[in-house]
Amino acid sequence: MNHLTPSLAVNSARMHRDFEALAQIGATAEGGVHRPSFSEAHLAARAWFRDRAQRDGFDFRVDGAGNHSAVYSADGAGDQTLLLGSHLDSVPFGGKFDGALGVIAAYEVVRTIRDAGVKLPVRMEAIDFSDEEGTLVGLLGSRAVAGSLPEDELAHPRAGRQALLEGLQRAGLNEAGILGARRPPESLRGFLELHVEQGPRLLDAQAEIGVVSEIVGIQTLAMTFLGRADHAGTTPMPARRDAGIGAATFMVRSNAWVREHFTAAVINFGQVHFEPGAYNIVPARAVLSIEFRAPDAGRLDAIAGGLREQGQAVADSLGLNLEWEPRGRLEPVSCSAEVRQAFREACRQLGLKFQDLSSGAGHDTMAMAKVCPAGMIFVPSTGGSHSYREHAEWEDCVNGANVLLHAALRLSGIRG
Amino acid sequence: MNHLTPSLAVNSARMHRDFEALAQIGATAEGGVHRPSFSEAHLAARAWFRDRAQRDGFDFRVDGAGNHSAVYSADGAGDQTLLLGSHLDSVPFGGKFDGALGVIAAYEVVRTIRDAGVKLPVRMEAIDFSDEEGTLVGLLGSRAVAGSLPEDELAHPRAGRQALLEGLQRAGLNEAGILGARRPPESLRGFLELHVEQGPRLLDAQAEIGVVSEIVGIQTLAMTFLGRADHAGTTPMPARRDAGIGAATFMVRSNAWVREHFTAAVINFGQVHFEPGAYNIVPARAVLSIEFRAPDAGRLDAIAGGLREQGQAVADSLGLNLEWEPRGRLEPVSCSAEVRQAFREACRQLGLKFQDLSSGAGHDTMAMAKVCPAGMIFVPSTGGSHSYREHAEWEDCVNGANVLLHAALRLSGIRG
Repeated sequence: MNHLTPSLAVNSARMHRDFEALAQIGATAEGGVHRPSFSEAHLAARAWFRDRAQRDGFDFRVDGAGNHSAVYSADGAGDQTLLLGSHLDSVPFGGKFDGALGVIAAYEVVRTIRDAGVKLPVRMEAIDFSDEEGTLVGLLGSRAVAGSLPEDELAHPRAGRQALLEGLQRAGLNEAGILGARRPPESLRGFLELHVEQGPRLLDAQAEIGVVSEIVGIQTLAMTFLGRADHAGTTPMPARRDAGIGAATFMVRSNAWVREHFTAAVINFGQVHFEPGAYNIVPARAVLSIEFRAPDAGRLDAIAGGLREQGQAVADSLGLNLEWEPRGRLEPVSCSAEVRQAFREACRQLGLKFQDLSSGAGHDTMAMAKVCPAGMIFVPSTGGSHSYREHAEWEDCVNGANVLLHAALRLSGIRG
Repeated sequence: MNHLTPSLAVNSARMHRDFEALAQIGATAEGGVHRPSFSEAHLAARAWFRDRAQRDGFDFRVDGAGNHSAVYSADGAGDQTLLLGSHLDSVPFGGKFDGALGVIAAYEVVRTIRDAGVKLPVRMEAIDFSDEEGTLVGLLGSRAVAGSLPEDELAHPRAGRQALLEGLQRAGLNEAGILGARRPPESLRGFLELHVEQGPRLLDAQAEIGVVSEIVGIQTLAMTFLGRADHAGTTPMPARRDAGIGAATFMVRSNAWVREHFTAAVINFGQVHFEPGAYNIVPARAVLSIEFRAPDAGRLDAIAGGLREQGQAVADSLGLNLEWEPRGRLEPVSCSAEVRQAFREACRQLGLKFQDLSSGAGHDTMAMAKVCPAGMIFVPSTGGSHSYREHAEWEDCVNGANVLLHAALRLSGIRG
């Protein structure tokens, strides 16, 4: 029992300075950040974190998957590590809170505990996981640590093999290193993550903290319609085998189908590309990037099956062929009951109103929950998500960091 | 009256060697060519033509729009020029006959006439027009010669301003030069073009030559749907403003509308691009490249108006905004009655079965018909068009070249 801890709190001003310094890196004119995995801006953000931690006197750990962490290991800390963190990469032209706030809060928590001289019985790390957003692979760093990254997915990453290899090269990484980043589950005390909600539920409920109960499953795939390149002036309309019209027809139909039959699921067609791609050539090939999410594996399977049937029906009706390439699947996961309880107790201790809720977004917690007690909290945010408009009030961010702090102390065996 | 001309014929073997040598430049593995305007392969094809003509002892003319021509000017040829030709650029991954056959045939005709010592009362040029296909602007070279290229279209070319400037730089050209390439209409005796049909009508009719009566009008535009970038997992489906679904819905509806209401017209959606373009972000922006063709200006206007209404209706229903950017319009044109008559007489003289027909494709003849007697013939082709599958039997190509030869002689005032 440590009598210092009940009043322990993060340094809001210091944490804010760090947050804003980080938000300058890859900043966009609109106020967001553009830090796709292993882009120049992402590498600069990673370097900023390393430099910050080293200047503050932390041991800095780098693993083969490019995960970075600031390590606090008191005398007698033992062999187990409690990880706190999130990620510094962003979607293209994303917001400055998504991921970054979780790394900054985790770092502030570890720094606060160390500076207060709290002798933890576990090692504690503030970790920045690689490629959470999936510009290259998705949950690359956390799945590497969990040992759940299939080699096959590195061979066929959703961004394409070439983009992955180029990204790894820029970051000084390689595939053998990624697979070697696995940590034995028994070495992990747990994983805690703080994140902006990226949705309206906490604000609607006037809650200050969301305690995440489960994270939806996510499946991604590329669907390609194959037709024939014809002259767009001389080929009669009925004689065309237009892959672009096939992709558009499929998008419209399957979007309506998911909305009608799966109220708890979502689907997105994030990109489409026609080839050859000229004004005056009927598209011979249309490649569609598809992602869908559902709270259980049964519904993920049902959507996948339905999409495939509908794609084939559209292809048949237009004289097209269909290719279907799975690009990755993250199973739905439940957060640890023990971690959820620690978050709830921390909220009660701090007098914060909390609410249990599910996450519609994938997070590094998904990967970590497979190998250790893992869970996450949300703080309220506005402006949607994966957008420069994403915003969280600083007071809410600090509340979240203090909940993270006290939940971490509880899970380390130190009660307030 | 020149008694040599009735039996004059092109050299099939020599013309075939030239055709095959040219088809090697930018050749694709499938048997087509990839020679977008001022690409490396296109520049190489242009250089091949110059080299061929210079080695054969022709004067070689280069104008400010990058048009290349081999010139035959006999003693007493006078001031007027009869142009024969087509273009050496291709659509991306196009066929080896489209354009190239017309340049090769024109060159073979001029060479045959010169080698036979025919003293023509006009100058004759075999011309390779720049950027017919519109990878950059479309009918760039022929409209520059006709003086009908709007400066505004160079400022907003359909490929985008940057692509045009880079292309011109690679070819050593500039805008002032393009506008200076205009030739006074009184200096032009006429323009004759040979081209593959790129459609099934001649083969269906078992005709050997198609005499083109008119060329359809073509309008191109970019239509952009503007929504909001949202997280594709956390944003409920009904709350989205999905620009991609807007573009797909518009494509499906307007494609069906044109097919139903305009049987003589065609429409093509050659490319679409979503931004930001990630699996997990709802598209904020979807840019659609649209081209449609109709045999008269009234129907072009009606289609343009209907598309705009339908785009706005789709945008309104999905909470999107719409941008509409015209990228160019080529009015429908009739071919010269005098030139058509010369082609028909040449066919009769050679005992070839011909058929009058309209062209669904734009050609350099469209531009030239505005300023001088211009017309074109088709030879039968299979395998569609703007595709590596495009094919014409060599015998048909030679027949076409001989029709071009004798029509050119007739228009020069020399009758067989």
